[in-house]
Amino acid sequence: MAPDGSAHPLLDHIREHDRRMVLLRHSAALLHWDQETYMPGAGDTGRSEQIALLESLAHEELSSPALGELLEQANANNDVSSPGNLDEALLRELLRAHRRAVRVPTRLVEELARTSSSAQSAWRRAREEAHFAAFRPALERLLSLRREYADAVGWEGSPYDALLDEYEPFTSTSEVQAVFDELQPRLTDLTRRIAESGRPVNSEILYRDYPVEAQERFGRRVLKAVGFEFERGRLDISTHPFSTALGADDVRITTRYNSRFLPSGIFGTIHEAGHALYELGFGEGIRGSSLAEGASLGIHESQSRFWENIVGRSLAFWKQFYPELQRCFPAQLAGFPLEDFYRAINVVQPSLIRVEADEVTYGLHVILRFELEKALIEGDLAVSELPDAWNASSKRLLGVEPSNDAEGVLQDIHWSMGAFGYFPTYALGNLYSACFTEAMQQELGSLDTLVERGDFAAVLDWLRRNIHATGRSLSPQELCSQLTGSPLQAEPFLNYLEAKYTPIYELS
Amino acid sequence: MAPDGSAHPLLDHIREHDRRMVLLRHSAALLHWDQETYMPGAGDTGRSEQIALLESLAHEELSSPALGELLEQANANNDVSSPGNLDEALLRELLRAHRRAVRVPTRLVEELARTSSSAQSAWRRAREEAHFAAFRPALERLLSLRREYADAVGWEGSPYDALLDEYEPFTSTSEVQAVFDELQPRLTDLTRRIAESGRPVNSEILYRDYPVEAQERFGRRVLKAVGFEFERGRLDISTHPFSTALGADDVRITTRYNSRFLPSGIFGTIHEAGHALYELGFGEGIRGSSLAEGASLGIHESQSRFWENIVGRSLAFWKQFYPELQRCFPAQLAGFPLEDFYRAINVVQPSLIRVEADEVTYGLHVILRFELEKALIEGDLAVSELPDAWNASSKRLLGVEPSNDAEGVLQDIHWSMGAFGYFPTYALGNLYSACFTEAMQQELGSLDTLVERGDFAAVLDWLRRNIHATGRSLSPQELCSQLTGSPLQAEPFLNYLEAKYTPIYELS
Repeated sequence: MAPDGSAHPLLDHIREHDRRMVLLRHSAALLHWDQETYMPGAGDTGRSEQIALLESLAHEELSSPALGELLEQANANNDVSSPGNLDEALLRELLRAHRRAVRVPTRLVEELARTSSSAQSAWRRAREEAHFAAFRPALERLLSLRREYADAVGWEGSPYDALLDEYEPFTSTSEVQAVFDELQPRLTDLTRRIAESGRPVNSEILYRDYPVEAQERFGRRVLKAVGFEFERGRLDISTHPFSTALGADDVRITTRYNSRFLPSGIFGTIHEAGHALYELGFGEGIRGSSLAEGASLGIHESQSRFWENIVGRSLAFWKQFYPELQRCFPAQLAGFPLEDFYRAINVVQPSLIRVEADEVTYGLHVILRFELEKALIEGDLAVSELPDAWNASSKRLLGVEPSNDAEGVLQDIHWSMGAFGYFPTYALGNLYSACFTEAMQQELGSLDTLVERGDFAAVLDWLRRNIHATGRSLSPQELCSQLTGSPLQAEPFLNYLEAKYTPIYELS
Repeated sequence: MAPDGSAHPLLDHIREHDRRMVLLRHSAALLHWDQETYMPGAGDTGRSEQIALLESLAHEELSSPALGELLEQANANNDVSSPGNLDEALLRELLRAHRRAVRVPTRLVEELARTSSSAQSAWRRAREEAHFAAFRPALERLLSLRREYADAVGWEGSPYDALLDEYEPFTSTSEVQAVFDELQPRLTDLTRRIAESGRPVNSEILYRDYPVEAQERFGRRVLKAVGFEFERGRLDISTHPFSTALGADDVRITTRYNSRFLPSGIFGTIHEAGHALYELGFGEGIRGSSLAEGASLGIHESQSRFWENIVGRSLAFWKQFYPELQRCFPAQLAGFPLEDFYRAINVVQPSLIRVEADEVTYGLHVILRFELEKALIEGDLAVSELPDAWNASSKRLLGVEPSNDAEGVLQDIHWSMGAFGYFPTYALGNLYSACFTEAMQQELGSLDTLVERGDFAAVLDWLRRNIHATGRSLSPQELCSQLTGSPLQAEPFLNYLEAKYTPIYELS
């Protein structure tokens, strides 16, 4: 017992800093949510200033010398390590974030914010004109700042490590490289076999007229069924779908509906619900702390992809929901067979645009970006060579070549935001989701059986106990090892794809 | 020119403190708006913590010794006073707020917050049971804290001055007393003459079934007509209507609809729009600063009451809008004469509940509360005597006596929030609105003529130029004197009532 009567006065002080930081972040998240949903147009300028202030206050809190001293002192006192101990996990997480925050000079943070803001404008213009040259100077500047940033943070193997670490902590570039090296040839091979199967899938049914009101009604029905609690969240509409935590008991998702393409709204909604269920499932011991975050973006994406693809695009799921969907759209779907609908939503077709890609070719889009951004950051590729390199990679990996930069190198916003190291997490999410599904089935038996009878409660309960509850208190690898007995593997995902697409395309 | 190259380095630093304070307040306002409109139920606890943190950060900013030094130094340098100078006005406003903030010990602020939070719960319970005794201990505690607060702030004539000053700056208790002393007998007399007129008004038409959707459609039509820009604001629904500024170009209002009583939604919407138009009209020179606030709650209320009553309940207004209203509710209103509708929405009837009171008796409700809370604060009335005192005052001023505490002393939330000194601002608003209307008509001619032909642009333009633009850079009295040539008077309001109700009730 410390002199002031508290058992852990040091930790109590650290927790108070952390609590304020989390409250500021949640507040900023509401400002952003509102900006994307209900804010009147003219509010934009004022809102950006408010968000910038709250974020800088959270950053001041994190990088404050007072917190730094408390953390270093607690760290020095802490000579035993017991995995699963939440106090230790909080200390580890905060030390990591604090050290990172103080290593990057404020000048660089501000310059990155300014440059990425103008780079986004340049990117938008360049994309409209489908002309990379208009984006090139901004990208060069951003890239050089990001390299400077990586050096400030510090790295050993590759500067890309320092950037990747922001999105996928405790994961190295070479680990990602190794798993992608295994993944890529197998995806290429599967894509080729599907193309050569001679059993084309007709997805015309998805492009009929689907009124938005009925799409929303169906989406809400699915959300309820999978266990999204509307008492603890909301569903709204925004230009770009997202999920955001505004508090331990207030996690909101947005979606968008396309009245001429049914899957967009349905799978967008389920995808974001997967993210939200993760954040709504954090355990009591980490609520309101910095540990109430996804273990990494990859792990976060494993949850959205699990619900969107492994559950949402399964035949079992549609055995449960197709009658309901037909009731929502009788004119469009009455008499259309379930099996044909299932095949339509699972068509595999190499294409140019990542966000429209199917489950098989999606990983190839990510690998393309990973290779290029890694080469840019490591200095092996000049920005001037990027468009040609993109087009060549697209041809090599996907077999298709963009006819202009807008459907090629300019299609994604990420680089214009300075977000190098983000893309891999999308593919890691798919890989983790398959690993976790194997672990789940070892305990619960066939996922299809549970889904087909609508027992989503059992599925969610398993996810909560095994993945959601611990939040960021385990690293991605610790979590994966704990659940599967080994670090991240590509094999489960590849097996999943084989098992799923062999019957759809009658592969041999 | 100062050595650092800025013309006013001191003022620049002060402005930066002010800017951060305003951004924090606007952020907290969004958190609150969301809580009342879209937040899922379970988000309450987390949200309250977020709001408390942002408010305490704004308070820290205001009471910081750094700002204090800057303000005192700038104040000492400033030996010439030029009215209308915005820099001076900002300095005056911030000095006033800063000194007030540092005089009240943090301990007392926190105790007030805690006590008023539990007092509100006690008040809700007591009101449900219509039994004052359950609220009495909490009210006694709050009252004693508020007296302590007044002493900390400092006062000369009456401790009530120190409390009133928070809502109605630069206005003394004796000034309010004087104007109420003139008002009360005249209101009582007019109420009596109306009761004895022998010309009862039938308002049954207002209690039919009015679907909410059509009410909202009509409300939006009115908002557009009076100049509420939806590009800079929103209309939503909440339990208690309010208006809130979330930025210089984002001011939102809420309303509520009663499908069995038409005036509730219509006049609630117009009332809040009056507040919002004020905040949307602040001039360029004060945008984003602490001067972008109402000059006082009384002045703020003058704007809402102007639009709700002087414009919204005029015959001229309904000559313009009644056809539209009939189109929204053909089954309810077709064939019902405009003049009868106008009389129905202007029925005068002494009643127990303030928020349901008409324009004539409303002031009496306020005077009742002012007398009682002043006596409580000055120690001339014990909390234990309050219910009896309330009932006696109600009988004396309004001629009606509550049959229980819920429709008497427990009807308003204000005292349970520790808000003593707030009530008078409602009546001051009515008085100011009539003074300003006289000034407006001196320049623009008959308001009725403008309203009848729908020329709300001219009306709003006058308000913007003469009242809105200056925000808080003038005190209520400076504003009133500038516009009318004299301080606040009761006469214009009394004249307005006489002129309006004489024909309605055929008074002699």
